[in-house]
Amino acid sequence: MIKNPKNLAQSLGLCFKEEKLLVNALTHRSMGANNNERLEFLGDSILGFVIAQQLYETFPTASEGALSRLRASLVNQDSLASLARKHQIGDYLILGSGELKSGGFRRDSILSDAIEAIIGALFKDQGIEACQRWILTLFADKLAALSADNWKKDPKTQLQELMQAHGVELPDYQLVTMTGAPHTQLFKITCKTPLADAICEGVGGSRKKAEQSAAEKMLALLEREKK
Amino acid sequence: MIKNPKNLAQSLGLCFKEEKLLVNALTHRSMGANNNERLEFLGDSILGFVIAQQLYETFPTASEGALSRLRASLVNQDSLASLARKHQIGDYLILGSGELKSGGFRRDSILSDAIEAIIGALFKDQGIEACQRWILTLFADKLAALSADNWKKDPKTQLQELMQAHGVELPDYQLVTMTGAPHTQLFKITCKTPLADAICEGVGGSRKKAEQSAAEKMLALLEREKK
Repeated sequence: MIKNPKNLAQSLGLCFKEEKLLVNALTHRSMGANNNERLEFLGDSILGFVIAQQLYETFPTASEGALSRLRASLVNQDSLASLARKHQIGDYLILGSGELKSGGFRRDSILSDAIEAIIGALFKDQGIEACQRWILTLFADKLAALSADNWKKDPKTQLQELMQAHGVELPDYQLVTMTGAPHTQLFKITCKTPLADAICEGVGGSRKKAEQSAAEKMLALLEREKK
Repeated sequence: MIKNPKNLAQSLGLCFKEEKLLVNALTHRSMGANNNERLEFLGDSILGFVIAQQLYETFPTASEGALSRLRASLVNQDSLASLARKHQIGDYLILGSGELKSGGFRRDSILSDAIEAIIGALFKDQGIEACQRWILTLFADKLAALSADNWKKDPKTQLQELMQAHGVELPDYQLVTMTGAPHTQLFKITCKTPLADAICEGVGGSRKKAEQSAAEKMLALLEREKK
């Protein structure tokens, strides 16, 4: 049985003037035309803005690339679904019988969409400031976990986290050549990721350094490709 | 010679309390560390939110997919660069000597980034409501040109416009098979785009109908892949 959305609002620390907005936000497209997809579109853009602003203020010396990566590490299907689970949003989802049988209330994509739709509903009900307050509360732990130096992580770690945020395979590093005498060896490493067609090459005095250099080039490439 | 940013603010209908924010927004990364990239990150998210909200309100029956396509048709490098040109923003850009010589003030990417950075600067100077007002003024013509039925365009047109918005090659349609007797012929068409790895297939009683069906499937595929 679907639980009363009023209880959800309460456990989320929200109080909707128009409760039907919350009901709408919980209604999956398997229920028909009057579903949460439009609110999700709206909520997604609000979430992007609020987190961007917060990161901009919190990390005054972080580059645009670092800010983008930080946002991608905070706002992605995985993280939104885990927030939805923490607040047991799955218990309140209104799903068509097919989705209900196949366990749609447990699916990451449906849970993550519902969080965004709730943000959209809150915006319609109470405006942008209420959204800002709620989103910052929702993400408080995750934001606090980003220490001031967090974005200075080494390139390999950054690249790995970026792949995880996109839910794709981890970067693939291959040793291409090893040249020079034992104490002046030079390693050439290629880095390949599912997010770029091109392969990046790094060179360094150790395998690790060459990998870091290849990862750094891949990060730069992915940033350029976004433009 | 770079013109006085005060004149630009005036021609944009803006009055900055902190003029150095506007100067920062006009400073390309070729000038060094204190450039407009962070403001661009912020402005991009604000622009996305403001246009999303406006489309949500203006087209109350448009699907999430239609809203996304409308936004992509309004907010893209081409459209932002053309807005920048209309307001002669290129004349005010602060570029390093390399970019200056190679005509960076005419480049789409640099102009489009500057518009987003100005939105970010305006937000820092005057908050979200001032940004909403300015963005809606900036996009007034483009928004007015989207008639209420605009988003109901046929799938082939929608797909073509989506490719144009992303600045990639147009969809490629290929006839695969033609079967049946003359009056009950069935056409099978494939559709390929640079934005998807998969190829979509459409079947129909005419070549045109099969193409529309293939385009529709490609649109649905691209929407799913965005998630």
